[in-house]
Amino acid sequence: MVSETIELRGHIIDSLILPKVLDQILTRGANFKIREIKIGKKRADQSFARIEVSAETSDTLDELVLRLRQHGAEVAERADAQLAKAPANGVFPRDFYVTTNQQTFVRFDGKEIEVRPAMMDSAIAVDRKKRSAHAVKFFDVKKGDEIVVGHQGVRVVPVQRATSHTDVFQFISTTIAADEPKSAVIRELARELERARTAKGKIAIVGGPAIVRTGAGERLERLIELGYVQRLFAGNAFAAYDIERALFGTSLGMDSEQAFAGGGHENHMRAINAIRECGGIAAAVEKKILTSGVMHACVRHHVDIVLTGSIRDEGPIPGVTTDIVEAQKIMRDKLADVTHALLLGTVQHSLAVAAMLAPTVKTVCVDIDPTAVARAVEHQPFQSIGLVTDVEPFLRELTDCVANSETAGAPHTRKE
Amino acid sequence: MVSETIELRGHIIDSLILPKVLDQILTRGANFKIREIKIGKKRADQSFARIEVSAETSDTLDELVLRLRQHGAEVAERADAQLAKAPANGVFPRDFYVTTNQQTFVRFDGKEIEVRPAMMDSAIAVDRKKRSAHAVKFFDVKKGDEIVVGHQGVRVVPVQRATSHTDVFQFISTTIAADEPKSAVIRELARELERARTAKGKIAIVGGPAIVRTGAGERLERLIELGYVQRLFAGNAFAAYDIERALFGTSLGMDSEQAFAGGGHENHMRAINAIRECGGIAAAVEKKILTSGVMHACVRHHVDIVLTGSIRDEGPIPGVTTDIVEAQKIMRDKLADVTHALLLGTVQHSLAVAAMLAPTVKTVCVDIDPTAVARAVEHQPFQSIGLVTDVEPFLRELTDCVANSETAGAPHTRKE
Amino acid sequence: MVSETIELRGHIIDSLILPKVLDQILTRGANFKIREIKIGKKRADQSFARIEVSAETSDTLDELVLRLRQHGAEVAERADAQLAKAPANGVFPRDFYVTTNQQTFVRFDGKEIEVRPAMMDSAIAVDRKKRSAHAVKFFDVKKGDEIVVGHQGVRVVPVQRATSHTDVFQFISTTIAADEPKSAVIRELARELERARTAKGKIAIVGGPAIVRTGAGERLERLIELGYVQRLFAGNAFAAYDIERALFGTSLGMDSEQAFAGGGHENHMRAINAIRECGGIAAAVEKKILTSGVMHACVRHHVDIVLTGSIRDEGPIPGVTTDIVEAQKIMRDKLADVTHALLLGTVQHSLAVAAMLAPTVKTVCVDIDPTAVARAVEHQPFQSIGLVTDVEPFLRELTDCVANSETAGAPHTRKE
Amino acid sequence: MVSETIELRGHIIDSLILPKVLDQILTRGANFKIREIKIGKKRADQSFARIEVSAETSDTLDELVLRLRQHGAEVAERADAQLAKAPANGVFPRDFYVTTNQQTFVRFDGKEIEVRPAMMDSAIAVDRKKRSAHAVKFFDVKKGDEIVVGHQGVRVVPVQRATSHTDVFQFISTTIAADEPKSAVIRELARELERARTAKGKIAIVGGPAIVRTGAGERLERLIELGYVQRLFAGNAFAAYDIERALFGTSLGMDSEQAFAGGGHENHMRAINAIRECGGIAAAVEKKILTSGVMHACVRHHVDIVLTGSIRDEGPIPGVTTDIVEAQKIMRDKLADVTHALLLGTVQHSLAVAAMLAPTVKTVCVDIDPTAVARAVEHQPFQSIGLVTDVEPFLRELTDCVANSETAGAPHTRKE
Repeated sequence: MVSETIELRGHIIDSLILPKVLDQILTRGANFKIREIKIGKKRADQSFARIEVSAETSDTLDELVLRLRQHGAEVAERADAQLAKAPANGVFPRDFYVTTNQQTFVRFDGKEIEVRPAMMDSAIAVDRKKRSAHAVKFFDVKKGDEIVVGHQGVRVVPVQRATSHTDVFQFISTTIAADEPKSAVIRELARELERARTAKGKIAIVGGPAIVRTGAGERLERLIELGYVQRLFAGNAFAAYDIERALFGTSLGMDSEQAFAGGGHENHMRAINAIRECGGIAAAVEKKILTSGVMHACVRHHVDIVLTGSIRDEGPIPGVTTDIVEAQKIMRDKLADVTHALLLGTVQHSLAVAAMLAPTVKTVCVDIDPTAVARAVEHQPFQSIGLVTDVEPFLRELTDCVANSETAGAPHTRKE
Repeated sequence: MVSETIELRGHIIDSLILPKVLDQILTRGANFKIREIKIGKKRADQSFARIEVSAETSDTLDELVLRLRQHGAEVAERADAQLAKAPANGVFPRDFYVTTNQQTFVRFDGKEIEVRPAMMDSAIAVDRKKRSAHAVKFFDVKKGDEIVVGHQGVRVVPVQRATSHTDVFQFISTTIAADEPKSAVIRELARELERARTAKGKIAIVGGPAIVRTGAGERLERLIELGYVQRLFAGNAFAAYDIERALFGTSLGMDSEQAFAGGGHENHMRAINAIRECGGIAAAVEKKILTSGVMHACVRHHVDIVLTGSIRDEGPIPGVTTDIVEAQKIMRDKLADVTHALLLGTVQHSLAVAAMLAPTVKTVCVDIDPTAVARAVEHQPFQSIGLVTDVEPFLRELTDCVANSETAGAPHTRKE
Repeated sequence: MVSETIELRGHIIDSLILPKVLDQILTRGANFKIREIKIGKKRADQSFARIEVSAETSDTLDELVLRLRQHGAEVAERADAQLAKAPANGVFPRDFYVTTNQQTFVRFDGKEIEVRPAMMDSAIAVDRKKRSAHAVKFFDVKKGDEIVVGHQGVRVVPVQRATSHTDVFQFISTTIAADEPKSAVIRELARELERARTAKGKIAIVGGPAIVRTGAGERLERLIELGYVQRLFAGNAFAAYDIERALFGTSLGMDSEQAFAGGGHENHMRAINAIRECGGIAAAVEKKILTSGVMHACVRHHVDIVLTGSIRDEGPIPGVTTDIVEAQKIMRDKLADVTHALLLGTVQHSLAVAAMLAPTVKTVCVDIDPTAVARAVEHQPFQSIGLVTDVEPFLRELTDCVANSETAGAPHTRKE
Repeated sequence: MVSETIELRGHIIDSLILPKVLDQILTRGANFKIREIKIGKKRADQSFARIEVSAETSDTLDELVLRLRQHGAEVAERADAQLAKAPANGVFPRDFYVTTNQQTFVRFDGKEIEVRPAMMDSAIAVDRKKRSAHAVKFFDVKKGDEIVVGHQGVRVVPVQRATSHTDVFQFISTTIAADEPKSAVIRELARELERARTAKGKIAIVGGPAIVRTGAGERLERLIELGYVQRLFAGNAFAAYDIERALFGTSLGMDSEQAFAGGGHENHMRAINAIRECGGIAAAVEKKILTSGVMHACVRHHVDIVLTGSIRDEGPIPGVTTDIVEAQKIMRDKLADVTHALLLGTVQHSLAVAAMLAPTVKTVCVDIDPTAVARAVEHQPFQSIGLVTDVEPFLRELTDCVANSETAGAPHTRKE
C-alpha cells in the first residue's frame, strides 16, 4: 500500500471538485482519508481539503494522482517540474505532460508560472530565459525545445462556479432539451451579447450550412450589421451555400420561397466557380458580383472570416485554408481573444473550436442532435449552454430579441 | 410455373402504382409479361395495363397476387368474394381478409360494393340484406357475422396523385428535413387550413406534451379561438401539463419565464388532484378554477376533446378513457368526419391516429425525430407532409400566418 | 431575509448529496452558511453537515427547503407530519405531500415510521392504529383516509453509493454510448445475473417488439430456460410479434431468414385471431397451437407475464389488461419483489416500469436511442446502467456469457 | 407555351425512370403528352418512351429538361455538345455542365463518347485530338482546356436494376432499420464479399474511430488477414485510436477489458508522438514498435492506406495527407478500381467517398444514425445497402460468416 497527500482549494464543493476527486479515487479502487477540511461558510468563501490517497501499487497511485491533478488537486510536497528536450521537430519527449483546457501552472526554480495560452491536448514548453511557459502543439515544437515531462510541478486550477448571479452561464451543465422552453434562455443570451458588445468583447460565430439552408442567413446578416459578430468560423460548404443563395436565390438548387422547386448541384457549383473567377470573396464584393448574404455582410462589416477545408469540399472557394495544420494555426490565433462563442448547426467545426477555447469563454451550442450538443459543451462547465433545437428559429428569436432592445435603446450599429 | 393475369387502372405511372407492382413481382422472384398497356397521353388521362404474372408455385403466386391487390391490382377473372361466419364474438374466421386503409370494393352477387368506412388492419363484414360492407375490428365482430375470407372478389383502389395543383399535399412523400427551409410549406399549410375552415372541414389536432412544455400552448389556444380546431386528440399527460401551467404557471415544476426555476412533480400532481376534485375539466372551467390554457379554450370553443390513457399516466384526469379498447372506439368515431389532421409532437398518439385515418385525410406530422415523422405519414402518400422540427416554432409560425391573413381579411372567429 | 437550518447525513459528499444541495441553493438565488461539517475520513465513514439556508421570502425558502428534502435534507427542528383527510374517493387533500422513489420516513407521535412501499408520484397514507405509512396512488385513496400534507415531518434518505466494490452498479450514472465498448459491461452483468439467480432474486424483463423483430427472441427464450427471468412486462405488440413468428415464421410479414420477403399485416392479424380463438396464450400452449417463442417459454417455465394495453394495439390478445389503471395496479404488485430489471428496446414500458421501481432495484436499460436510455435510468442513480446499442447483439452476447459459465460450472436450469 | 420532346430508354419502368421523369414534370408545373411508348413485355426487355414536355416559359422548360436529363432523358433532336475554354487555371467557363455520378455520354462530331471516369459534381473536359472526355474537378482544370457548356449533346444513362437475382444489391433502396433483422443480409453480404475476393475485386473499407473504440478492430484485422480488404480510407483519428490501443491497450485512456478504467488523453497523444518519432506507421511496424492492430495488419498485408486530415486532428500522424485538395486527388485515384465499398461508422469519410464512387460500386453503409445511412447510400440506387446498427456487432457477425465458410471451404488467406 502506497499513499500520497493531495490538496484542493477553492469552491471545491459547489463546483463539484471535491466530489469528483473522491469519485475518481473510489472508482479506481483506491482509498482516502480526509486529513483536514475547511469548508467556506458563505458562498464567496474558499474551501480547502487535504486528503491522503492510498492505492495498492505505486503505478496505480501515480496514474490516479495524475487524474486528480486534472481536477485541480495538487500534491502537498511541492517540487519543480521536470523538463526534457524535444528529440526532433514536431516530436515531443516521450513522457510529455498532456494539457487540459484548464488554467495551468508550472513550478520552475521554486516559483509557479502560468501556462499561457492554456490549450487542450498540447505539451508545455518552458522558456528558461523569459521564465515563461506556453502550450505547444505538435506542429509548434522544434528540436531542442524544453518540454515538461511527467506530472510533478504542474498544477491545474479548474474553472469554478461564478459566485455572483450576473449571467445565464452559471450552471454545471445546462442543456435545454427539445421539449423544454427556450425563450427565456434566448432572452438572457441576448442580454449577455448586449453586455459583451458594450464591453468590446469578441463574439465568434461557428456556423454550419444549415444556417443558410434553412433560410436563417438573413438573421445572421442582421446580427453582423448590429455589431454582434467579430469572427466567423465556417467551412467551404457554408460559404458556398451562402454565395449560391446570394447569386441564384437557391441552396443546392432549392428555392427558399418554393421549397419544392426541386434539386440540383448546378447553381452550387457555378457559385463556387464565380468566386474562383473573381479571385475571392472580398474581390467578388468589390466587383459588385456578391451583393448580399452572410459573406457579403462579413466583408462589409469587417468581420474576420476563417474558412477551413474538409475532404467533402467542392472547389474550394479561394480563401479557404486547405491545409488542416495551417488551418488549426489560424483558428488558434483567431480564437485567442474571443470571449463568446456561438456554435450553430455544425458538429465538425464546433468540436474543433471547442477543443481550442479557453475555459473561460462563454459558449452556446445549438443543434438538433442532442449528442452533438453534449459533446460540444462538455469541456466548458459553468460556461456553456446547449440548446437542442433547429438553428433557424433560434436565430430568428435571438435576432428579434437584440433588435427589439436596439429599437428601445441607443443605436449601436457599427458603420462600415 | 403457374400464372395469373392482373389489371391496373388509373394514374398508374405517375402515382407509382405500375412501378410498385413490377417491383413486387421482381423482388419476389416472379416474372411478368405485359400483355397490354395504354398510357394516358395527358396528365388527367387514365392509364391501363394488363400483366401476366408467373411464379414457380401456386402458393408463391397467391401470396404475390395478394400483395399486388393491395397496390390496386385486380385479377382479370372477376368472381364474388367468399364469406365465412365469425366463430365467436371477437374472433374472425381463420382466413379473413385483412384490410389496408385504401378505398376497397367487395364483389357480391356479381356487383361491387364499397367498404365503408375503410380502415386499416380490420376485417370486412358483409350485410347480405342491406347489401353493404364495412370494416370491422376484433372488438366489433359478433358470432355469426359474415366476414370476407381469402382475397377473391376484393379490389383496392389506392389514392392517386391529384391532377390539379390546388394544394401543398400533392407529392409522393414530402418530408422537410431539419436543415431545410420550412417557411414556405408552413405558409401553404396556413392557406390550406383557411380553405378548410371556409369549407367547414373538420380539423383535428393530435398533440403531445411538448406543445405545452415548450410554451406553444398559447399558440394552440389562438388557433382554437380562430376556429381552426374541431377535435383534439391527446393523452392524460398533455391535459395534465396544460392544467398545471394554467393553475401554477409551471410544467413539471419548471417556470416558462425562468427556465431554470428547477423541477418537481408537486404542481403536476396537484393539478391532477384539483381536476379530480372538481369532477372533470368542463366542471373546472364552469367553476372558474380552470381559466386559461388549451383545455380551457377547447371547452369554451366547443372543441371535441378525446383523451386516452396509457400505463405511464398519473391520475388520470376525469374524462380520460382508461380502457384502450373503449378509447379506440371513441377515436374511430371522432375521426370519421375529419378532413385534416395535424400530428404534433407525439409518436404514440400520432401512430394510433394515423392507423385510423381515411386515406384521403390531409395529414401533417411535426416532430423533432425524423423516424417518427416518416412512420406517421407512410400510410398517407400524396396526402401528407412531414416536418422535422421543434413543435414550438412550427406552431408560432403557423399561428402568425393565419392570424395575419385574419387581420387582412374578414373575421372568422367563432364565438362561444 | 428568512432562514432555516437543514441537516445532511451519510455519504453526502461522494454520493453527491451535499454538492446537489448547495447547487440547488445557489441556483434558486438563496444563500447558505455551513454551521457545522464533519466529513468521514474513510470510505465507509458517514459525514454530517448542518447548513443555514436563507432566502428573500418565506415562500421561496419553503419551496427551496422542499427541494432540499428530496435530496435528503432534514430540517433541524423535528416535528410531526401533518395529516388531512381525503375529501372523496380518488382525491387527495389539496396540499398533499408528493413522494419521490427514495426511502422516506414520516414522523408521527414523535417517532419516525418508514413509508412502505416507497413509490414515486404518490401521496403518503398513514394508518394511526397500525402506526404504518404507505404510498398511495390516486386510485388507491378512499374518502377519509389520512394523508400527509405539507412537508413537515417527512424525511427522505437518498440511495447512496455502495461502499464496497461488489458489482457493476456503483457509479453515479453509467451510460455506455454507441461508440464505446460494451463487452466488459455485459460480462459483468452476466455475473450479476448469476449471483441474482443463486440468491433467488427476482429478475424482470421489460421488453419491446424490437426483441422479436430483430430475431433476438430465441436469446430471450434461452435466458428464460436457464432460469434468469421471473417476470415479463410487455405490451400487446410484443406478444403479437412473438406469436406471429412462432406460428408463421414472420414478423409483420417479414421472414427472418429472408429479410426481403416483403411486408404485410395478414400474419400479424391472424396470429392475434388464433390466440383469441384459443381463448388465451396459456390455452394455445396447452392445445399445442403455440409451440415456440418467448410467450411459449414463459408459460412452460412459469414466468409471470404482465401484458398491458395501449391505444395502438390490434386485438388485443386475451390476457392483455386493457384498462390502464387496472394495469398499473398489476404492474405495481408484480414489481414489488423484483430485484433486477432489464428494460430492453421499449420506451413506453421502460418509463412506466422505471416510475414504479424501488430505488434499490438494479436496472439496465438497452435502447438505440440515447435520450430514451437517459430518461429510463435517471431515477436509479448508483443502481443503473444504460447501454446505447441494438437490443439483438446485446441479448446475443449476454446469453452467450451466461450460457458459457453454465457449461463451465454447475447446471442451474430450472425444470418445468 | 413552349415544348420539347424527350426520349427514355432501358428498364424505365421497373428502375423508376419513367415515373421519376413524370413526377418531375408535374412537380414543376409543366405538362406532358406521351407520344409513343413501348414497354418491354418481359423482365429483360428494354422499354422506350417519347414524351412531349411543355411549360409556360422557355426558361422553365430548359431547367426542367436539364433535370430530366439527369434521370436519363435525352432530347430527341441530337446535337453536338458545346465547348468553351477554361478562362483560367482552376476556373470553368461560366455555363459549364455539372456532372452526376451516372454513366454519361457527350456527342462530339456526331458521335457519342463516354465520359471516363464518371464523377459527381465535376465538369466534362473534351480532348479533341484523342476524341476522349473525362470528368474534371476544379483542381484539375487548366486555362484553355475545352469544357462542355450547356446541356446540349450530353446524355446520362442511370444505373438500372439488375435483371438477374445474383446478389443482395438489387433493390431501389434497402435500409435495414434498427428494429429489423440483419443476420440474413449480413450472410448475403459475406457471400458477396467471397465472390468479390475470388473475382479479384477491390474491396475498400471506409472506417471511423468507432470501429476501434467499440473493440471491433480485431474483427477488421481478421478480414484483412483473410484477404477481404484491399484499401482502407480513414482519418487521423482512426489511426491514432488504433495505434493507442496497440501500444497501450486503451482508447482515449479507456481500457477495453475494463470499460470503467477512466479517461484521459495522455495515451492518445503519446501514441501519436511515438509514430511521429518513428517517422510513420510503416516504419513503426518495421521497428517492431507497432506489432498489432488494424494499421499493423494493413502494413503486413499490403492494404493501401489512405489517411486524410480534418481540422479536429491531433498530430497528425505522418502519412496523413493534410491538404484536403491533395487528399481528394489521392482518394479519387485509390477509388478508381474499387468494386465494393464498406462505409463503417463515419459520416464525414462516408459522404466524401460516396461522392467519388462510380455508380456501379456495390456499397454498404453501417451507422447507428439513420440519417447518416440514408445520405451515404442515396447516390447508389440498386447498388447499396444501409444498416442502422452498431458497427461492432456488424463486424463481429460479418467476420464470423466469412471465417466459417473459410473453415468449411478451401483456404484463401493471402500470405504476406
